[in-house]
Amino acid sequence: MRRVAVIGTGHSKFCFNSPKTSLEMLAEVSLDAMNEANITPKDVQAINVGNVLGPFEEGQGMIQSFFANDIGCFNVAASRFEGACASGSMAVRDAVMWVASGYYDIMLVGGTEKSTAMTTGLATRTFAMYGDSRYEFPSGFTFPAVFALLAHLYSNQYNIPLATLKEQMAAVSVQSHEYAMKNPNAQIQKPITKEDVLKSFMVSTPIQLQDACPFSDGAAAVVIASEEVAKKLVKRPVYFAGLGQASSGKLSSQYKYLPRIRARELASQQSYRMAGLTPQDMDICELHDCFSIAAMIAAEGLGFFEYGKSGAAWEKGETRLGGKIPINISGGLKAKGHPIGATGVSQVYEITRQLRGDMAEQGRQVEGAKYGIVDTLGGDGVLLSMILTNQ
Amino acid sequence: MRRVAVIGTGHSKFCFNSPKTSLEMLAEVSLDAMNEANITPKDVQAINVGNVLGPFEEGQGMIQSFFANDIGCFNVAASRFEGACASGSMAVRDAVMWVASGYYDIMLVGGTEKSTAMTTGLATRTFAMYGDSRYEFPSGFTFPAVFALLAHLYSNQYNIPLATLKEQMAAVSVQSHEYAMKNPNAQIQKPITKEDVLKSFMVSTPIQLQDACPFSDGAAAVVIASEEVAKKLVKRPVYFAGLGQASSGKLSSQYKYLPRIRARELASQQSYRMAGLTPQDMDICELHDCFSIAAMIAAEGLGFFEYGKSGAAWEKGETRLGGKIPINISGGLKAKGHPIGATGVSQVYEITRQLRGDMAEQGRQVEGAKYGIVDTLGGDGVLLSMILTNQ
Repeated sequence: MRRVAVIGTGHSKFCFNSPKTSLEMLAEVSLDAMNEANITPKDVQAINVGNVLGPFEEGQGMIQSFFANDIGCFNVAASRFEGACASGSMAVRDAVMWVASGYYDIMLVGGTEKSTAMTTGLATRTFAMYGDSRYEFPSGFTFPAVFALLAHLYSNQYNIPLATLKEQMAAVSVQSHEYAMKNPNAQIQKPITKEDVLKSFMVSTPIQLQDACPFSDGAAAVVIASEEVAKKLVKRPVYFAGLGQASSGKLSSQYKYLPRIRARELASQQSYRMAGLTPQDMDICELHDCFSIAAMIAAEGLGFFEYGKSGAAWEKGETRLGGKIPINISGGLKAKGHPIGATGVSQVYEITRQLRGDMAEQGRQVEGAKYGIVDTLGGDGVLLSMILTNQ
Repeated sequence: MRRVAVIGTGHSKFCFNSPKTSLEMLAEVSLDAMNEANITPKDVQAINVGNVLGPFEEGQGMIQSFFANDIGCFNVAASRFEGACASGSMAVRDAVMWVASGYYDIMLVGGTEKSTAMTTGLATRTFAMYGDSRYEFPSGFTFPAVFALLAHLYSNQYNIPLATLKEQMAAVSVQSHEYAMKNPNAQIQKPITKEDVLKSFMVSTPIQLQDACPFSDGAAAVVIASEEVAKKLVKRPVYFAGLGQASSGKLSSQYKYLPRIRARELASQQSYRMAGLTPQDMDICELHDCFSIAAMIAAEGLGFFEYGKSGAAWEKGETRLGGKIPINISGGLKAKGHPIGATGVSQVYEITRQLRGDMAEQGRQVEGAKYGIVDTLGGDGVLLSMILTNQ
């Protein structure tokens, strides 16, 4: 199949309580992405959109169809993907296949979400619908509780005292806040210290407020095209080298494997295999840090650190610019923000811009980066993995 | 790209207030489809699911992941598609491309929905989220109102007095009820007369209760495979010959084109072109008769009758078994039922079984059928079109 490239990117500022609708946010970033790709709406042959809570937050389902029309992409095929937090990445991966297959040459992929109009309490309850609703939610398994459980299992499995683990988790949050200060699109732009994390209020033991990402409003979009078309339109296409997707059932179905997430390990293996690359080849990573413990588990599942060792790696700065594998140099979900259906597309935006060398002006460029990996976790059981390259 | 075939089918009885969850219904029909395809869950490489109201009706989003795990398709890629009533067809078309491209050999596609747990009044309000929620819903555009508007425009555009049009619309419903009597999966299995339709209560002038499909619970599934794999597994694969998908914006954006639906005409043209066939080549059709006027508009948009002439065609029996183009010999959405996310997959099930000659035992086989077309309308602006063949 053909190589497929990102040729245009757009990204809103992530924020609390945007005055714009999901559609308006997505329209703006999509026009940015099309401008960057040197195309007009009539060049777009199909659209994929990641969106999760549209019907709940705005009473708007099937947003992709209205969106396509409103930006002038009249009558194109437009599909909505839902895989909880991984919806945007799912929409991207699917579009890559349509272009790779030769069916379309140019597609627009967007993700958009408003998740802050509800109070946080209701948002947590609402979002728990993306875990198992029959048995686990009634047992108290909202997502903070799920990751609290994983933190306890992690502590136990790898013989890390909880107090030590909490310090490691704090190091993850501190780094994310630091890099978000350099990202004008980030929702939270203030530094925090380890002490700030450890004194923040307890959400679900051992997870405290500053171990958790915020709820966010925002949108991101990318234009993707076949290699041949990409080379005609832009100077610096960034190519998809590997794709992976896997799922799991409810948390209890994975119990022997926890705190590792089998779907992630399978999805990333698919990506590495397709790309003919290994974790050691990666120069930058955007991974799914909905909670700091989630980031640690992800970094291990992606093959960057041994099991039980990633917290120490964060503390030693191995995940920083110039470190072994720079992770979430955008600020991550923790500080950049996490507008659910937009998150995966935002991650692709970040890696694309890093691989184009665009982040120097923000003081957070990974010098000479050739390969980057995106990791997105949906609920507790959908995993998307994508490797991009400028080679 | 490779030819792709349906090699297994499963279909629940559509009904009011199923005691089963969406996941349970989908699991049952999927196991039927896998049995028919002579495969086991471990042979399924990826899953696409159409589901619309899961989060609303059951507090369950991202159903595809839990579903995959519960039926033993551990860790496969599983995606949820939402395009309102066309969600199931969207999931099918997308899967066809993944198999056609060579990425997967065998995929399972399902659609499932519970839409009857809410009272009908709330269901109409809830489902209006799949129209434009910003301007049109607050103006009273629930779906009955949308199709009432189209009926008025149809009457005016084609100079058909409203009383005549209502008789034509009644003929559509009467035929659907008649064939549903022969379909054990149909939700409504009682005959109605033209008089029954015309005396049923007024929903939104000129649309009466018996011009409208019911809300339904139900599920359907198909296994699809590459031609090479299909020939090894089953004796009578049914192939996809054409695919089409198009969208439109809110109803008011289409005003010059109404009551024709431009997205349908574009999507079906894509299908015919890809298949190298014309409307005259079709032997059977399942089309989207959410309202009887919708069926009439669809039959014209698909090229079977001249604009303004399809009502008369129904009255003359041209849409019956043995007629010019047998339409909705399943009972259609009107009487078979309309479990939203399942509908498109159910239509593919029907056409597949007709093209395999399986419907003789139910007394509703289209003899010698070689080509069939599926038409699914999502909201008022997503159109899916698929042509299948046993050739």
